[in-house]
Amino acid sequence: MASFKILAISGSLRKGSHNTAALRAAQELAPEGVEVTIFEGLGEIPPYNDDVRTGEGYPPAVEAFRTALREADAVMIATPEYNYSIPGVLKNAIDWASRPPEQPFNEKPVAILGASPGLFGTSRAQYDLRKMFVFLNAFPINKPEVMINQSGGKIDAEGRLTDETTRGFIAQQIVALRDWALRIKV
Amino acid sequence: MASFKILAISGSLRKGSHNTAALRAAQELAPEGVEVTIFEGLGEIPPYNDDVRTGEGYPPAVEAFRTALREADAVMIATPEYNYSIPGVLKNAIDWASRPPEQPFNEKPVAILGASPGLFGTSRAQYDLRKMFVFLNAFPINKPEVMINQSGGKIDAEGRLTDETTRGFIAQQIVALRDWALRIKV
Amino acid sequence: MASFKILAISGSLRKGSHNTAALRAAQELAPEGVEVTIFEGLGEIPPYNDDVRTGEGYPPAVEAFRTALREADAVMIATPEYNYSIPGVLKNAIDWASRPPEQPFNEKPVAILGASPGLFGTSRAQYDLRKMFVFLNAFPINKPEVMINQSGGKIDAEGRLTDETTRGFIAQQIVALRDWALRIKV
Amino acid sequence: MASFKILAISGSLRKGSHNTAALRAAQELAPEGVEVTIFEGLGEIPPYNDDVRTGEGYPPAVEAFRTALREADAVMIATPEYNYSIPGVLKNAIDWASRPPEQPFNEKPVAILGASPGLFGTSRAQYDLRKMFVFLNAFPINKPEVMINQSGGKIDAEGRLTDETTRGFIAQQIVALRDWALRIKV
Repeated sequence: MASFKILAISGSLRKGSHNTAALRAAQELAPEGVEVTIFEGLGEIPPYNDDVRTGEGYPPAVEAFRTALREADAVMIATPEYNYSIPGVLKNAIDWASRPPEQPFNEKPVAILGASPGLFGTSRAQYDLRKMFVFLNAFPINKPEVMINQSGGKIDAEGRLTDETTRGFIAQQIVALRDWALRIKV
Repeated sequence: MASFKILAISGSLRKGSHNTAALRAAQELAPEGVEVTIFEGLGEIPPYNDDVRTGEGYPPAVEAFRTALREADAVMIATPEYNYSIPGVLKNAIDWASRPPEQPFNEKPVAILGASPGLFGTSRAQYDLRKMFVFLNAFPINKPEVMINQSGGKIDAEGRLTDETTRGFIAQQIVALRDWALRIKV
Repeated sequence: MASFKILAISGSLRKGSHNTAALRAAQELAPEGVEVTIFEGLGEIPPYNDDVRTGEGYPPAVEAFRTALREADAVMIATPEYNYSIPGVLKNAIDWASRPPEQPFNEKPVAILGASPGLFGTSRAQYDLRKMFVFLNAFPINKPEVMINQSGGKIDAEGRLTDETTRGFIAQQIVALRDWALRIKV
Repeated sequence: MASFKILAISGSLRKGSHNTAALRAAQELAPEGVEVTIFEGLGEIPPYNDDVRTGEGYPPAVEAFRTALREADAVMIATPEYNYSIPGVLKNAIDWASRPPEQPFNEKPVAILGASPGLFGTSRAQYDLRKMFVFLNAFPINKPEVMINQSGGKIDAEGRLTDETTRGFIAQQIVALRDWALRIKV
């Protein structure tokens, strides 16, 4: 039986990123029948310039991102909070993804999580992302919201998310995402 | 006498960008004693990755941006609206600018404008930028807000902003920015 | 056959409110099998004070609002934009509605529209409402977004929304709301 | 010598409100020459209805609020977070305050703080308030941002804010507000 495919995107390019660590935890926590793949190519995506798109077409790294989105049953985005919003790197990838001919976020089920070393754990960034999904006509789940604050104490030196409460929330979020995807399937 | 120096940043990399056109108009409209310089290097700034900063240090294009910000008396940002927020390209530059040692937006007077072909003229994007400036401790002016909607009809084939009402708002905004900068000078 | 029941809420208490006018248009435009009822009691709802709730319980006007929400299959909210957000009157009603024991917005399909005499037609207010619905776990539709700008020219002296394009959007929105409600029904 | 007068507004009407407690702490913490007065009449302000304003004029409770704002050198707002935004009660008062003839928030220095029993301490609400102040042309300070999370453990049974770290932030904020007011004085 085909498994349910989640494309996981980390908004941080750092090797030791806490957000990428949260997505690796999601891979471990996915229940039977759910497969979480982390998209690795965000750092290769060039600055969005519509002259490039209308001239040469989508660069290969962009095409790879668009294809990965298209083939996924659902999307999971782990975003840091930079300057009280999502990283430019993540927004830039979304800007490329949003362009014609088909728009791969359309009707896509989405889950949002975020890790931050501070007290307020991406609570200022995640709603900017939700506003974008109105334009993109994606379908983000409301609950559980996963905001991993003071993330430094929850991830060990090997980059493993060890905090059991947080792991529990992520496990719940994956199930909620799959269930929502099944619920809205036409 | 030294002139008042405004660094102008366009959030779009397109040659025919309406936002860059608005900044060229700002250059023409600046009163005696005010000099508006358009920053040209946004497209060279690589994706923000803190491993790069802590490893090799700031890339040259980032250093150039940080220096230009530092040397400006005030900043003017013209932002398109992509996916109901500011472009990733613009946010990425801000992400690099916000890092240590000194943070060049600190206490910087800022004016925000935006052009968009749609009806609602960047009214969904500009407030995301204002939220970032709280974190960055910049001092954006409140008024006049400049939202150039249906920009296609206001800019000619040579990329000149011809709409007189809009030109008037931009002229007012430059004066308001300079006056605000003088007012808050310590 | 039971019709699909939409509770329509106007954020303005003015007799000549353009938002209430838009909801009257929605009543005329509802297709066979869809019934739009305008909630009339928002002006009777007292300022939210949790001491009142825990002391005497919900005031009658609040209870009426909570009951109307509970009995509706979906909700349609027409909001003006005051000070770049939704009216306090509307937020106050939502604050009362959000309290225990049951929370009537939970899993409720919602459509948002808004009318404003200005150029930017509630485009700064509607997303604040959407953020609230994340907390409330309501399910707002993404499209069509209905933003009635320069509403003074679209509504006649008798308070009838006469602009045909706008009427078309509202008609589409009602259908989208009903279809979404059917789609997510468990 | 005339003291610097701060009008303090709590967004909660509860007797045991943590936000009102934070403002009482502000009264204790104000330095020599700064006087903090808590506005008591928010609960008397009726639902905003522009028919009332244009008919009978401002209700007495609204007039009292407008006068108190006008006479203050600066404003301090303590807001809870209800449904991820500011309370309707607070927004309703702002809606009345924003109307003609004069608009008392114009050029007013403002400080924002907030207390919440949850983990994320009004971090989702305070920026909505800041967006309103763009429209109102008020001048909120950027720093320090005061977000009192898990407020239940920081306020004793008598309603006294006992947490020393938080008290320190509030003391800093009052000084920053006064200094900002002096800085922007024309």
